[in-house]
Amino acid sequence: MASYKAPLREMQFVLHEVLGLDQALAQMPRYAEVSPDLVDAVLEEGGKIAEEVLLPINRAGDEEGCQYQAGGVVVTPKGYKEAYKTFREAGWTSLAGDAEFGGQQMPKAVQVLFEEMVYATNTSFQLYCSLSMGAYQALAAHATDALKQTFLPKLVDGSWTGTMCLTEAHSGTDLGLLRSKAVPAGEGAYAITGSKIFITGGEHDLSDNIVHLVLARLPDAPEGVRGISLFLVPKFLVNADGSLGARNGIVCGAIEHKMGIKASSTCVMNLDGAIGYLVGEPNKGLAAMFTMMNAERLSIGIQGIGLAEASYQNAVLYARDRIQGRAANGAEQPEKAADPIIVHPDVRRMLLTMRAQTEAARCFAAYVGTELDKSKYHPDAAVRERSEALVALLTPVAKAFFTDYGFEATVMGMQVFGGHGYVREWGMEQFVRDARIAQIYEGTNGVQALDLAGRKVVGSKGQWAELFFAEVEDFLGRDGGVHPIFPGLRHALAQLKEATAFILGRAGANKDEIGAASADYLRLFGLTAFAYMWARMDRIAEAKLNDDMAFYGAKRSVARFYAERVLPDATALLAKIKAGAEPLMALDAELF
Amino acid sequence: MASYKAPLREMQFVLHEVLGLDQALAQMPRYAEVSPDLVDAVLEEGGKIAEEVLLPINRAGDEEGCQYQAGGVVVTPKGYKEAYKTFREAGWTSLAGDAEFGGQQMPKAVQVLFEEMVYATNTSFQLYCSLSMGAYQALAAHATDALKQTFLPKLVDGSWTGTMCLTEAHSGTDLGLLRSKAVPAGEGAYAITGSKIFITGGEHDLSDNIVHLVLARLPDAPEGVRGISLFLVPKFLVNADGSLGARNGIVCGAIEHKMGIKASSTCVMNLDGAIGYLVGEPNKGLAAMFTMMNAERLSIGIQGIGLAEASYQNAVLYARDRIQGRAANGAEQPEKAADPIIVHPDVRRMLLTMRAQTEAARCFAAYVGTELDKSKYHPDAAVRERSEALVALLTPVAKAFFTDYGFEATVMGMQVFGGHGYVREWGMEQFVRDARIAQIYEGTNGVQALDLAGRKVVGSKGQWAELFFAEVEDFLGRDGGVHPIFPGLRHALAQLKEATAFILGRAGANKDEIGAASADYLRLFGLTAFAYMWARMDRIAEAKLNDDMAFYGAKRSVARFYAERVLPDATALLAKIKAGAEPLMALDAELF
Repeated sequence: MASYKAPLREMQFVLHEVLGLDQALAQMPRYAEVSPDLVDAVLEEGGKIAEEVLLPINRAGDEEGCQYQAGGVVVTPKGYKEAYKTFREAGWTSLAGDAEFGGQQMPKAVQVLFEEMVYATNTSFQLYCSLSMGAYQALAAHATDALKQTFLPKLVDGSWTGTMCLTEAHSGTDLGLLRSKAVPAGEGAYAITGSKIFITGGEHDLSDNIVHLVLARLPDAPEGVRGISLFLVPKFLVNADGSLGARNGIVCGAIEHKMGIKASSTCVMNLDGAIGYLVGEPNKGLAAMFTMMNAERLSIGIQGIGLAEASYQNAVLYARDRIQGRAANGAEQPEKAADPIIVHPDVRRMLLTMRAQTEAARCFAAYVGTELDKSKYHPDAAVRERSEALVALLTPVAKAFFTDYGFEATVMGMQVFGGHGYVREWGMEQFVRDARIAQIYEGTNGVQALDLAGRKVVGSKGQWAELFFAEVEDFLGRDGGVHPIFPGLRHALAQLKEATAFILGRAGANKDEIGAASADYLRLFGLTAFAYMWARMDRIAEAKLNDDMAFYGAKRSVARFYAERVLPDATALLAKIKAGAEPLMALDAELF
Repeated sequence: MASYKAPLREMQFVLHEVLGLDQALAQMPRYAEVSPDLVDAVLEEGGKIAEEVLLPINRAGDEEGCQYQAGGVVVTPKGYKEAYKTFREAGWTSLAGDAEFGGQQMPKAVQVLFEEMVYATNTSFQLYCSLSMGAYQALAAHATDALKQTFLPKLVDGSWTGTMCLTEAHSGTDLGLLRSKAVPAGEGAYAITGSKIFITGGEHDLSDNIVHLVLARLPDAPEGVRGISLFLVPKFLVNADGSLGARNGIVCGAIEHKMGIKASSTCVMNLDGAIGYLVGEPNKGLAAMFTMMNAERLSIGIQGIGLAEASYQNAVLYARDRIQGRAANGAEQPEKAADPIIVHPDVRRMLLTMRAQTEAARCFAAYVGTELDKSKYHPDAAVRERSEALVALLTPVAKAFFTDYGFEATVMGMQVFGGHGYVREWGMEQFVRDARIAQIYEGTNGVQALDLAGRKVVGSKGQWAELFFAEVEDFLGRDGGVHPIFPGLRHALAQLKEATAFILGRAGANKDEIGAASADYLRLFGLTAFAYMWARMDRIAEAKLNDDMAFYGAKRSVARFYAERVLPDATALLAKIKAGAEPLMALDAELF
């Protein structure tokens, strides 16, 4: 079975040393009581529950999976119910919630690092929590006070969980096609009928009630995305005194058999006149749903980081332990029958690639998380506005780039194990299977790329991207010391700016140019953003090198590796972008 | 369930039009009776058995997997026994065998294209056949006539299958560590004791007998790889009259539970004084085993092509059928609720990437296969020598590059399906899981890269690589017409030559430079080789464009895509190679 140690020192480095979280929090009254010590204590305790409660049931949960039983019952694997109870009672479902509903309102940067540990040790488990928090956010932003008072404390204390019921069989990325219907049913309620698929946590045995957020059409609603409304549909209706009432007409019809995340139930949910309550304005359901989209997408990005970190830790242990062959320049451990495989440059290439990306991603996640907090809670409107633009720009980068590289990292970690990586008992191939879905759900990575290049870059006429470029240039302008990563960052930024100008120049005449460039553009953006993170980490590491040669020296070494062995991809990406749409669009659809 | 149509037109294009197989065969007496019509008929019939017999049991075989029963019995999934009988009786196990043992001795280029169809439709099934043919090759090259007469006709007619028993728990890539012992047991036989793992087809219920090729140490054998001998160890001993005798002491102790290829048994084989017969010279077992290594490695490369092709075909069908969203420049099918997703540039990017790599790989596989034939059967010794060097050079490229890109292609095919790709019933995620092992077994792709950069390039002082470069330059020198792929090929070749010179220049002073460059070097080599294939295909396509505008026009379009949207990676790879070993080796092993 795979092992895991919460990377607490790494997290402290990112939060307190690189990003200056404590100074940022001091500017936001919401976080007046969040001290550095509290942050560290939360992460330390979070690491323990991940290591001690969630990791031990991860492998068995994958083997057993969720089971569907007659009558719409879904049973989670052995141990999940008990683990959820422990998790909930220790207060972990309340980390992100607002104080007025019983939440701990921890900063987003702390949330994402906690989530990283939960994804790392049990991705399926985290999904129940992540969806609940998504439902919480949407309700907190758009529901009536009555609904909030009834439902939010329960989502915060974890006794109830939540879902997002968006997708229908014929309507995934294109939600304008959805057909579920809502008709008035008196007393401000609606009766909702339709069928939803791919509903994460749609049914299970972890909580007393499930709060479904359902997209459906009101009678006479306009066609397409302008005619979609959002409803709260509980599994059990709730009585005036808060106790559970009748079973509502929303029932799980089947669960999917999937490549991975097998302990997470993925449900077909059938609604047959289910009672629901309108959330937000009629026909404005999509806008309400997208309120919490940035937070949710960032969370799914974290899945990539968590699984990459878990895979990395196990690959390192294996590479130090497994003896096979000899170092190219002569035996390093001649007393043994062979040297550990970590002596081989190509094994190191894989490990360093995983590590360089994971540490940059962790730093970037906390950075975007803090900007997200600033966009909502900073007292200065100008700061909020700037942060909101940055978050809108960088969230698709985080979601897609974290999950793409995260998947690639789990594939590399498995490769380090050779044949043993392909055997299930070692747990390395589960990381790959569990990581794969994150590139697909919560908006496929292709959709993220289109969102970045189209809505965010072209949509803002390049202004939001300029905000980010200016920040990086400002950082580089304050350069001191010798940093091999700085020239790499300068070069990557120049290429990213050139790509941005290219897309802005082409998009007017041919909108296909946006989609044609989008995937490579997002990757180039991600590479540059990670280079920026490594530059920031390297600057701190250089300044503090003598405090801890091993820790900061390793940071400097990985920064250099990133500059010299990862960043060269930027050049190739720019060349592909500049090839334009024509090579993609020339072939007739029938000739594929 | 996934569908599949044998790509016969593509295969004919590669063999008859691009590579001029028929002219090459005419020079080899062994293939005197192999006409173009015969080749086409073999592939057509081969396509039928793949589509009609092997494809239908592929999904269910994955779900059911092989079952281990008490007493070392392994049961293959429902339908496999019957399919194997049909396959065998139709003569497909004899395709590659020599005529003197009942084989059809088809050219290697035909074999690889047939194997592609079997891997595409049922990778697990093909593995039983592939290992049998590997055992056949080793015996044909090194066994005594008596052993050959007893065993080879049975391997050819498929009534017996074969295995390679190399790996032990502590000894995988480093076979010098293996511990299995062989002691003389009278009458020229040996008693062999030890335990082997990861033995593909080590036990199953498809055939009457299993012919194991086992590596073990004789008494007083030198340590390391110079003390390993090869033995034939049958599951059932064979009487003088050819009938089956006593059960031998080689028994399956367990089967592995794996990520994929679940219908292929992967066995722990325990030998307890099992009777075996020496194959080849004492202590020269590794050399004997490596006789058939090039053919085997090429075959595993084909696994990547087959699965990529299968994934591509299904992704195209889905992309034409699934309607979601609208084309960026306005509805293409306004009469429908949405456009098919193939209108989106990013979906096309994925499909074209898959196709560009698969078609180049197919062409390259047939090219290397023909060189393999020439290295053995061409009457001119100088031709044989040149072809042998080319095959030695290009086989690791084929194995690793086909399986790396093949895996990536199956991941892309799955991505085209969105959430449906993650659900098992569609079959797209099985392609990913089945493809993943090919990057690991038969020598990990890291080992292939080291073999290429070290043994083949540095080992020949660059001379073998020069043979290939000269061939490409000769081709480019005969340039006529307008080919967007030609400048790309020239540029990639220049970068590959620069990388080759870099490695040759560095390797003397520091052997780690070879391993540090190896993975990127192999990828650069593969990109260049594929560009060469696309240049050859494009030249034919240009000349014949008016014969079939659709077919040859598509070829030209994909060639251009390859040049403009894939080949730019070459620049990045060269930059990474030239960063050298230092960024990889600097970090202490304890600091990972």
